Amino acid sequence: MAFVEIRDLHKHIGQTVDVRGWLYNKRGSGKIQFLQIRDGTGFVQAVMGKQDATEAEFLAASGLGIESSIEVAGEVREDKRSPIGVELTCRRLKVLQEVKDYPIQITKDVPNIDWLLDRRHLWVRSRKPHAILKVRSEAVQAIRDFYYQNGFVLFDAPVFTPASCEGTSTLFEVPYFDEKAYLTQSGQLYGESGAMAFGKVVVFGPTFRAEKSKTRRHLTEFWMVEPEVAFLELDGIMDLAESQIRFVVQRCLERCKEELKTLERDISRLEPVAKPFPRISYKDAQKRLVELKAEFEKSADPDKQKLAKDILKNGLGDDMGAADETAISMQYDRPVMIHRYPAAVKAFYMKRDPADPEYVLGVDVIAPEGVGEIVGGAQREDDLEVLLARIREHNIPMESIDWYVDLRRFGTVPHGGFGMGVERCVQWICGCEHVRETIPFPRTIYRTKP
Amino acid sequence: MAFVEIRDLHKHIGQTVDVRGWLYNKRGSGKIQFLQIRDGTGFVQAVMGKQDATEAEFLAASGLGIESSIEVAGEVREDKRSPIGVELTCRRLKVLQEVKDYPIQITKDVPNIDWLLDRRHLWVRSRKPHAILKVRSEAVQAIRDFYYQNGFVLFDAPVFTPASCEGTSTLFEVPYFDEKAYLTQSGQLYGESGAMAFGKVVVFGPTFRAEKSKTRRHLTEFWMVEPEVAFLELDGIMDLAESQIRFVVQRCLERCKEELKTLERDISRLEPVAKPFPRISYKDAQKRLVELKAEFEKSADPDKQKLAKDILKNGLGDDMGAADETAISMQYDRPVMIHRYPAAVKAFYMKRDPADPEYVLGVDVIAPEGVGEIVGGAQREDDLEVLLARIREHNIPMESIDWYVDLRRFGTVPHGGFGMGVERCVQWICGCEHVRETIPFPRTIYRTKP
Repeated sequence: MAFVEIRDLHKHIGQTVDVRGWLYNKRGSGKIQFLQIRDGTGFVQAVMGKQDATEAEFLAASGLGIESSIEVAGEVREDKRSPIGVELTCRRLKVLQEVKDYPIQITKDVPNIDWLLDRRHLWVRSRKPHAILKVRSEAVQAIRDFYYQNGFVLFDAPVFTPASCEGTSTLFEVPYFDEKAYLTQSGQLYGESGAMAFGKVVVFGPTFRAEKSKTRRHLTEFWMVEPEVAFLELDGIMDLAESQIRFVVQRCLERCKEELKTLERDISRLEPVAKPFPRISYKDAQKRLVELKAEFEKSADPDKQKLAKDILKNGLGDDMGAADETAISMQYDRPVMIHRYPAAVKAFYMKRDPADPEYVLGVDVIAPEGVGEIVGGAQREDDLEVLLARIREHNIPMESIDWYVDLRRFGTVPHGGFGMGVERCVQWICGCEHVRETIPFPRTIYRTKP
Repeated sequence: MAFVEIRDLHKHIGQTVDVRGWLYNKRGSGKIQFLQIRDGTGFVQAVMGKQDATEAEFLAASGLGIESSIEVAGEVREDKRSPIGVELTCRRLKVLQEVKDYPIQITKDVPNIDWLLDRRHLWVRSRKPHAILKVRSEAVQAIRDFYYQNGFVLFDAPVFTPASCEGTSTLFEVPYFDEKAYLTQSGQLYGESGAMAFGKVVVFGPTFRAEKSKTRRHLTEFWMVEPEVAFLELDGIMDLAESQIRFVVQRCLERCKEELKTLERDISRLEPVAKPFPRISYKDAQKRLVELKAEFEKSADPDKQKLAKDILKNGLGDDMGAADETAISMQYDRPVMIHRYPAAVKAFYMKRDPADPEYVLGVDVIAPEGVGEIVGGAQREDDLEVLLARIREHNIPMESIDWYVDLRRFGTVPHGGFGMGVERCVQWICGCEHVRETIPFPRTIYRTKP
């Protein structure tokens, strides 16, 4: 017997076909049962009239519990009210496993998100997480396709690293036989060695931060895509980030229509990515923030008044705060690129701006709607002597970084790249409240289960 | 100035173009210099006659060290002897960084592979590792495309797991805030929860084994692709593995011609994957091994005589040894599938064969040419009571596995999948001696650097 996937039912109108999957929801009376069936590829309603089936089958359907596994034979009928355009008239029902007391009941309120996350292995069957994870799957393939089509070589960076070059407070340390290793926080330095070998590479894998902060924006384990390109300078890095973000969002808009509808996502908020992204320097952003602070203070909107208090909490030359990012991004309908941050707040490997060496040739991309930074990138310091001076200034032990310095000893060229957090990007596309909804099994300070 | 990538030079015959990259090798005399240039996309020879350049440029070219970064303007000439079909007549040379004493000299013998792996960040520029990693990049994209095109949803499994269900001797333990976590050895159990939600999923990420064995087949960190499918039984699992392996090998044969030539790979050894893969049961394999042992003992070939000693070292009902796998795979010109292993040597979650419950519905795929197992898969035990009994028999703590048992409580269906190690597969395609050559930065018991 050949079973038809629910996503393909529209090709079988008028035919009687077999479908298998799980009972997602049910309502009915003594005369008719409406069975919502899911098979992973879609959801369809199967209607069983008392006259359509044997008495035993109708009785079985009437008492069937949510998430029972079933096989159904039915006639495919066109139905304009159905999201997939068809319905089934149920002719036969076979129950594979009858389920009672499935813990996640659609009609009942659930206690809270932690209760659901404890049941994540089941919760992924529900419509909303199901839709978010399908968008994630599409977004990841879009990222992979974008780099592949543009001639990038995939260059997987290691998870076990000898040491970190940035702050060590958020590093996971692992006993490694008789030594120690650390879980990677970024594959960038490895990506740079790849760029010198392949011209254009992309690193794409899980990265780790021992984040103690319990915010809706942080996970201890998240996936990051990190392109790195030889001979690419800051403007080119911004062009690349813009193209990649646009490609991913457009792909999801095209191929995840149903999922975005399920999520009640206002897609008009995503459509502006087709237009050029605004680019603003850190210094201009600071000037703009002075204006916005004054404007928000006078605003009748309490949210703006609240924001005004937090704007420019850090002084000029310091990093931008979350309120600053939010205020700037509120001015635009699409991601905004803030470039040339103060060198003092950025990593040692970022190249200084020749026009003003207090600032670096770095860029952050801030997503709209309060999602915040989704991309951080930079042109790298490519001068051997300058890089060595930076390493000394930052007190980075030379023995841990000497291999990286080799890349400036042996054929250094201008180059750069960026990192984009996949979960943040999916959070923005789906309009999720919390980043932990965007990965199958989220890991946070209090959660390693299931 | 627009630079042309070396892979695109053949489109510019007769034109003068700019190329940038690194000096890969050089030979010449007082009258003419032959510069081998690489830019990551390819290798090209630029010929500089003394009359083609200024005296300063010719002098610079004559003294230029390997891996100097350069820009070259030159006329593209068709050349049948060139692997890319063209050569450059060099008209201008600009040296970006002059390099002396690049440590990996093509003309000199290198001490050993460990010396090269210490310099992996540079060694990836050399022709052979460069070719292997390009094949890896292509193979990974082929895997992703195969599952995407076949309607699978990407379902990333977590790296941090609460505990392992298989042996714990090869687990990496990580201090996780005030608790402990373990690095994943396989995403399969998580994949099963995905299959119940999405029908067809694929898990694809790095996995970890604290392997103390120093063999040419083991890494502590390697990438594994793990499809898992609802309603799929053993024959379907074998079909899926065969299709996926075939797709990946064919893609590499089509799109990595140059790389396989560089590796001097005998591609006639890969072409038989187009034909069906032989399938042989463990029991039939054991019978065949009795014959092969006798045959090899009488053989004049010392390798076969040696192998004969190790064949059937384990008794019937025990696992197959490496010699057994080698002897069986030598009988075929393509991967062989050995199915229905003794239950006693396989994992608790494999479903027993109803026709002979001492055996499980599992399959290993053995690659030819001594590469060994590249795929291990099985139909999973889908009966709640049987699974609970297996968990008790294996002394697996119920609190660590209860979430997995839920998948049999709430809508269980027949299902299965497999795992394929990416590095082993690339090792086979490229014909590499050692699996550590197939990943950018290999990690083994003695190596976490660079």
